[in-house]
Amino acid sequence: MSSSIPPTDQLAALRLEIDRFSEVRDWRQFHTPKNLSMAMSVEASELMEIFQWQVGNEDFASLSESKKEAVAHEVADVFIYLMRFCSVTGIDPLKAAQEKLKLNDAKYPAGVVKGKSDKYSDY
Amino acid sequence: MSSSIPPTDQLAALRLEIDRFSEVRDWRQFHTPKNLSMAMSVEASELMEIFQWQVGNEDFASLSESKKEAVAHEVADVFIYLMRFCSVTGIDPLKAAQEKLKLNDAKYPAGVVKGKSDKYSDY
Amino acid sequence: MSSSIPPTDQLAALRLEIDRFSEVRDWRQFHTPKNLSMAMSVEASELMEIFQWQVGNEDFASLSESKKEAVAHEVADVFIYLMRFCSVTGIDPLKAAQEKLKLNDAKYPAGVVKGKSDKYSDY
Amino acid sequence: MSSSIPPTDQLAALRLEIDRFSEVRDWRQFHTPKNLSMAMSVEASELMEIFQWQVGNEDFASLSESKKEAVAHEVADVFIYLMRFCSVTGIDPLKAAQEKLKLNDAKYPAGVVKGKSDKYSDY
Repeated sequence: MSSSIPPTDQLAALRLEIDRFSEVRDWRQFHTPKNLSMAMSVEASELMEIFQWQVGNEDFASLSESKKEAVAHEVADVFIYLMRFCSVTGIDPLKAAQEKLKLNDAKYPAGVVKGKSDKYSDY
Repeated sequence: MSSSIPPTDQLAALRLEIDRFSEVRDWRQFHTPKNLSMAMSVEASELMEIFQWQVGNEDFASLSESKKEAVAHEVADVFIYLMRFCSVTGIDPLKAAQEKLKLNDAKYPAGVVKGKSDKYSDY
Repeated sequence: MSSSIPPTDQLAALRLEIDRFSEVRDWRQFHTPKNLSMAMSVEASELMEIFQWQVGNEDFASLSESKKEAVAHEVADVFIYLMRFCSVTGIDPLKAAQEKLKLNDAKYPAGVVKGKSDKYSDY
Repeated sequence: MSSSIPPTDQLAALRLEIDRFSEVRDWRQFHTPKNLSMAMSVEASELMEIFQWQVGNEDFASLSESKKEAVAHEVADVFIYLMRFCSVTGIDPLKAAQEKLKLNDAKYPAGVVKGKSDKYSDY
């Protein structure tokens, strides 16, 4: 994306570009919500695979440049399918995330969960 | 997010809010890249689970309101962990997606793949 | 596995072979329950990826021979990591499956769920 | 499964029971290879979720009894869908695993990979 596009529109511009990418290839027919949810899950798994056999908690900074690049590519794939899923379903990802953060705030009160990682159903 | 925030900064504002949410709970210790990649994968799976037993290609619009809301919540969870992963690793998701789209454009030339869903390694 | 091994012991023999495969490579150190659960999830995703863009419900028989072989390999990978997970944790997979089937039988009474695919929490 | 069934047939008996469970509920219509691969992936993810926020390499033995039981249930779910997938596709899981172990043996020569966790494409 050219740097002449104001940051305002970067997320919207990305979504438009992803949609155009799919339409030009006539991929709408494959892009059902079900299939896109599978694609997102597959890409999230490919990201995870990179960390799969780590035993310690190696810092991201300590990864080789080629692994860092692989991580960025998988992050991009998840992001792209997530945005495409939102276009196909009409979900506003920013609004959905804001609402979910509010729910999470109620489910995980800071004073109660501080420094703990248990699932809310365990409190 | 208040509507007084210009759209410019909505993605940046969301990331800040997610980071603050985590820091206030002292969750940085659990938020290794490995663990966050797992969390993203788990949430993507929860999204997928909603579509798991569909046999036809039911339209998203035909889902019940409660299922649509569940879908929006899972989309939000994937988005939130994706943004958190980017904060922890220093990856710029917009830039990463732009670069990946360019690579995909070369891997899947529109003239060759139009209307086909094969993996690039099959061409 | 040689056909001289009675079917009795085929699952046990497979598990022994998987364990020996890992021990000879000194991989026990990487095979924590957490890491093995990730590996199982990654392999299940690779299996799923083969079906990802199907729109209709193509029959398995209609897949190309190379895709059928790829499916068998991914099924094998999930199975291998599942057995390895059981060895490392001491879980008896046959017993666990029997017990779960009993629970499922109670959760999904045949008379109630016949021909329906809803989750038990929806009944 | 009653202990009167010889161990010979335990895996076969389990598969029969799983198939009967599905047929009695008229679930064959939902059990396409695609949908079953999704179900397997969802269950593998639920297993993984239990270990998601572990930071150290907590031993399985140190988990609470209720977490150990949850682990066994998720292992069972993956196993059940794996066996069902095999019934629907006609894949022999024992044979597939044996063949894959042979391929892995060639891809990961014990002398080369001992104590290392790199992917074969990195050697």
